[in-house]
Amino acid sequence: MSTSLLNNILFPSDLKKLDATELPKLSEELRQFIIDIVSSNPGHFGASLGVVELTVALHYVYNTPYDRIIWDVGHQAYGHKILTVRREQFQTNRRYHGLSGFPKITESEYDSFGVGHSSTSISAALGMAKAADFNKDKDRQIVAVIGDGSMTAGLAFEGLNNAGIEKTNLLVILNDNNMAIDPNVGALKEYLLDITTSKTYNKLKNDVWHLLGHLNKLGHNYRKLAQQIDNAVKTFLLRQSNLFESLNFRYFGPVDGHDVVYLTKILSDLKDIKGPKLLHVVTQKGKGFKHAEENQTAWHAPGKFNKETGEIFKIKSDKPLPLKYQEVFGHTIVELAKQNEKIVGITPAMPTGSSLNIMMKEMPERTFDVGIAEQHAVTFSAGLAIEGMLPFCNIYSSFMQRAYDQVIHDVAIQNLNVVFCLDRGGLVGEDGATHHGVYDLAYMRGIPNMIVSAPMNEEELRNLMYTAQLSNKGPISIRYPRGRGVLTEWRTAFKEIIIGKGRLVRKGSDVAILSIGHVGNTVVEASKKLAKNHIDVAHYDMRFVKPIDEEILHEVGKNFKAVITVEDGSVVGGFGSAVLEFMSDNGYSPQIKRLGVPDRFVDHGTPEELHRECGFDVDGIVKIVKSMIQPNILSNVG
Amino acid sequence: MSTSLLNNILFPSDLKKLDATELPKLSEELRQFIIDIVSSNPGHFGASLGVVELTVALHYVYNTPYDRIIWDVGHQAYGHKILTVRREQFQTNRRYHGLSGFPKITESEYDSFGVGHSSTSISAALGMAKAADFNKDKDRQIVAVIGDGSMTAGLAFEGLNNAGIEKTNLLVILNDNNMAIDPNVGALKEYLLDITTSKTYNKLKNDVWHLLGHLNKLGHNYRKLAQQIDNAVKTFLLRQSNLFESLNFRYFGPVDGHDVVYLTKILSDLKDIKGPKLLHVVTQKGKGFKHAEENQTAWHAPGKFNKETGEIFKIKSDKPLPLKYQEVFGHTIVELAKQNEKIVGITPAMPTGSSLNIMMKEMPERTFDVGIAEQHAVTFSAGLAIEGMLPFCNIYSSFMQRAYDQVIHDVAIQNLNVVFCLDRGGLVGEDGATHHGVYDLAYMRGIPNMIVSAPMNEEELRNLMYTAQLSNKGPISIRYPRGRGVLTEWRTAFKEIIIGKGRLVRKGSDVAILSIGHVGNTVVEASKKLAKNHIDVAHYDMRFVKPIDEEILHEVGKNFKAVITVEDGSVVGGFGSAVLEFMSDNGYSPQIKRLGVPDRFVDHGTPEELHRECGFDVDGIVKIVKSMIQPNILSNVG
Repeated sequence: MSTSLLNNILFPSDLKKLDATELPKLSEELRQFIIDIVSSNPGHFGASLGVVELTVALHYVYNTPYDRIIWDVGHQAYGHKILTVRREQFQTNRRYHGLSGFPKITESEYDSFGVGHSSTSISAALGMAKAADFNKDKDRQIVAVIGDGSMTAGLAFEGLNNAGIEKTNLLVILNDNNMAIDPNVGALKEYLLDITTSKTYNKLKNDVWHLLGHLNKLGHNYRKLAQQIDNAVKTFLLRQSNLFESLNFRYFGPVDGHDVVYLTKILSDLKDIKGPKLLHVVTQKGKGFKHAEENQTAWHAPGKFNKETGEIFKIKSDKPLPLKYQEVFGHTIVELAKQNEKIVGITPAMPTGSSLNIMMKEMPERTFDVGIAEQHAVTFSAGLAIEGMLPFCNIYSSFMQRAYDQVIHDVAIQNLNVVFCLDRGGLVGEDGATHHGVYDLAYMRGIPNMIVSAPMNEEELRNLMYTAQLSNKGPISIRYPRGRGVLTEWRTAFKEIIIGKGRLVRKGSDVAILSIGHVGNTVVEASKKLAKNHIDVAHYDMRFVKPIDEEILHEVGKNFKAVITVEDGSVVGGFGSAVLEFMSDNGYSPQIKRLGVPDRFVDHGTPEELHRECGFDVDGIVKIVKSMIQPNILSNVG
Repeated sequence: MSTSLLNNILFPSDLKKLDATELPKLSEELRQFIIDIVSSNPGHFGASLGVVELTVALHYVYNTPYDRIIWDVGHQAYGHKILTVRREQFQTNRRYHGLSGFPKITESEYDSFGVGHSSTSISAALGMAKAADFNKDKDRQIVAVIGDGSMTAGLAFEGLNNAGIEKTNLLVILNDNNMAIDPNVGALKEYLLDITTSKTYNKLKNDVWHLLGHLNKLGHNYRKLAQQIDNAVKTFLLRQSNLFESLNFRYFGPVDGHDVVYLTKILSDLKDIKGPKLLHVVTQKGKGFKHAEENQTAWHAPGKFNKETGEIFKIKSDKPLPLKYQEVFGHTIVELAKQNEKIVGITPAMPTGSSLNIMMKEMPERTFDVGIAEQHAVTFSAGLAIEGMLPFCNIYSSFMQRAYDQVIHDVAIQNLNVVFCLDRGGLVGEDGATHHGVYDLAYMRGIPNMIVSAPMNEEELRNLMYTAQLSNKGPISIRYPRGRGVLTEWRTAFKEIIIGKGRLVRKGSDVAILSIGHVGNTVVEASKKLAKNHIDVAHYDMRFVKPIDEEILHEVGKNFKAVITVEDGSVVGGFGSAVLEFMSDNGYSPQIKRLGVPDRFVDHGTPEELHRECGFDVDGIVKIVKSMIQPNILSNVG
């Protein structure tokens, strides 16, 4: 039967029993297994297909878990999970209480370092390699597998720069597929392409070899000279012509990343070579699944699909579904940019995910994909802003953590007009703890000069974006979640929102609920449910965490004994704490319950599952309102 | 008279009136001026001396402020300030309400981008260059001046990677002096040394040239071949042998950074060369002041000194002064590391500033200076910790902002045992807004699993460090200020501090003051002063922001109507907010005043001046206590 090899592998040790000649067949089985599962249980796709052979070769050659493989980002590690005891569980991938979509140390001893964000692998691997020295684990091999996209982030360079002077046997495998989620960009990528195609190198080599041939004919003296030159050129080419060699890494490659047998050979050979090494492996993202090979961005994480036809299933609905906030952002920035020539768009390697690709298509010269480089994205925006441009810098909330210093140091201190569009704010769902955007409200509101806002629906997103570009406002952040809004008529006329003004969504007298952002829609549902129980909730959509609407808060402080704050973010120092600070500073003392993400890391699941877990789904809000209302009623009676 | 040239320069346009032959004399005058002022009004020293000629050449060649010079870090920009209208004010450098020690856009139109932290200049300059294109300022020249130390940070690499593909005429000047504050480290530094001394390059060139000479004698065919090879080698060496060329920058240099006339020539030539360019300038830090040349680290920022003898003045005191917290850290980590073989020390380029150099000297193999690379320092620590080592990762509070994501993603999510020693916590004084460490209590306490602590004195610092390494505690941060502690007997026996336990410093009944960290000593002073007025303050040194001491807070919540929190950090989301959250969650409603740094950027001055400005000096605390006590007494009477 066709899957006989894979079915017999529980541990990587089972893999080692195979003959090397069987590895291509195993690779094909593994690839098919991934296609089978991911077609019906969605997840990342192209990246794992691209490293099937590399994964098999690594587990064939190395002695995991004693040896350490660190997968950068980790969305390419499905094959690794399947080969390391988790084949049967793999159908639970990314589901609530199921396997994580990324390597995770609490899930398996084969996952040697938890990942999710890019470019951590070299630094982590270097730490692990030094620890192996301290622990006298002299035979332990440490391998970091990092994509060319991840290599553009500064952290990767910092790791290389340090690893180049430390005496460890670290192996960095550069998985070069020319892609981040979108096509990779930057000078490094062009360099990698250049050394892969090697025209200059080959021309020089040919010229010199050609000459040496001539010289050899000319007698002893010339032969000796020829040899000297040969050595000098070789040394030079090896030691200095290569960017990685410049950083003290021995460079090997480029090699074909889909030739599994050759990969096992070269990996075995590299084991014996001391010092920091880099193996340049060329792969194709989506390899082996035609549609994924042909449209790599769409197949990065395609959702459910028909594995025979390659049709990606759309969600079916009787009535038109609301657009995603991302799409509303993408269309709106184009509208605004047409009216305001100072607007430019910046994304660190997320044009498709953020929908900035809409602007990129319409006005390429005013849109910048700067690579996986959040720090640079922010400081580059600061440079644009200081000269009068109006950058909309779109970064996912959890990735913005990478640029926290640049937001403070380069933008906020100078009070520059940069509009931060914080995508993926709140619990993102299946990507889990590394990707939840739950700290931004807290870390942004602590920054002086920063306006911190979040729209409750698509219209507010549009109007906040419109407002942000009206005149000099200093830095402003507009945070919105992953996924669909709530309106079908989203393209409404632009209307300025006064900075720091919230709005009353629903009048009421029993409890005041203050919400920030999209989660306000959950409050609307909860309020309706409570109304049926004759509980009368006042609901305010605050829109701004900072400056906070003091008029509303005075009103609430004076008129309500029970107040609930709701945010899709951490309750430690977040929006709710801003309300507490105001109440304390102004001498109000209502009972206040803060709903949001508690002070622990939340795993993956659907957003709905996670909201329930954290207690700010409809039922959670209803429950907390009731718990506050009863003692109040009692105390009124008493 | 000897200073006649400098005295006649108010604007850079005055400088342009000089003949190039006069520039060496002007440079000497400028150097002497810096020595004169900084010897009596302390500041950064060696860096500015090293770029005197470069500064003169830049302002001679470029048309500032229309052209933009971006000084990376900016502590080397004293000469720039003196040549741009601020010579007379320069004696107020770094003083309260005086000139800033760094370029600052609100101070002068010649300061085109505000700096303080390293490695921002390339990204900012690229943004400014793109803006010049959009704004049709076609003639505008944009120059980033960046040190080899700054070049090790990931942000600089991200900037290069992006600039290499953007069509701008950006000029990056690499000021290569082989130093950060301490000697620069890393593979890049070794590479720069290699291309500066150029042995491999020269050997290859000589061999090839030698050969070509022979070939020319051999007749037409060989001459043609020789020419082909010559071209190929030249192309190769220029286009590919150089790390910066790899990233699409045209590389020029290395050139002598102290030959001011030659610098003006090459800078003029470079104006006409299109595309991204890097000029490698070799300078000596401290140039022209013998003592500074010989001991570059000590003379980075020496304090007051005798400009004739080179004697650095020590602060005189009748009784022995307390050590600096830094020194206590440095000695204590060595003591602990001798007892606990798992302990290693990590610093991103601050061995001297943090005093980790004490450990570096005693146990070099267990200490890591990773270069200016905070992100890597944290992820590297995570790699060490995951394999059972116990890293003490020492980073200044404001620089830790650079590694915020790594703290969350690599350390906290995995609950690893990394001890973060946050040096320079609180208002640092003369370095100003960019360097104040005022956000850490807020941004650290929002991170799940993180223990957030701050010692009130040297003994607590030692005991927190001791406690941190006792057993698996997960991540812990210990934050302490720049400067001296309060004890003379600091080397006390180690004693475990129970995590999350504060202590009662003073019993009292009128008002409870909760303090965190060193600022508690100010509260002690204030309490004494208040006692003389028969106001009876209870004072708790909380020691932990998280987990916060709930026993103390229950006690305070139950027994006090007036509570004051004091922290040397932002009152937005910080320690005071943690107290508010507890009180709210537990149904207490005392009146609470939060003292600390307000929600605005605070400029430079002495720490004492800044504490007063922010209202948490002794008088500020006394005042707020009195303001809270009076209405209470009244209400008791009423």
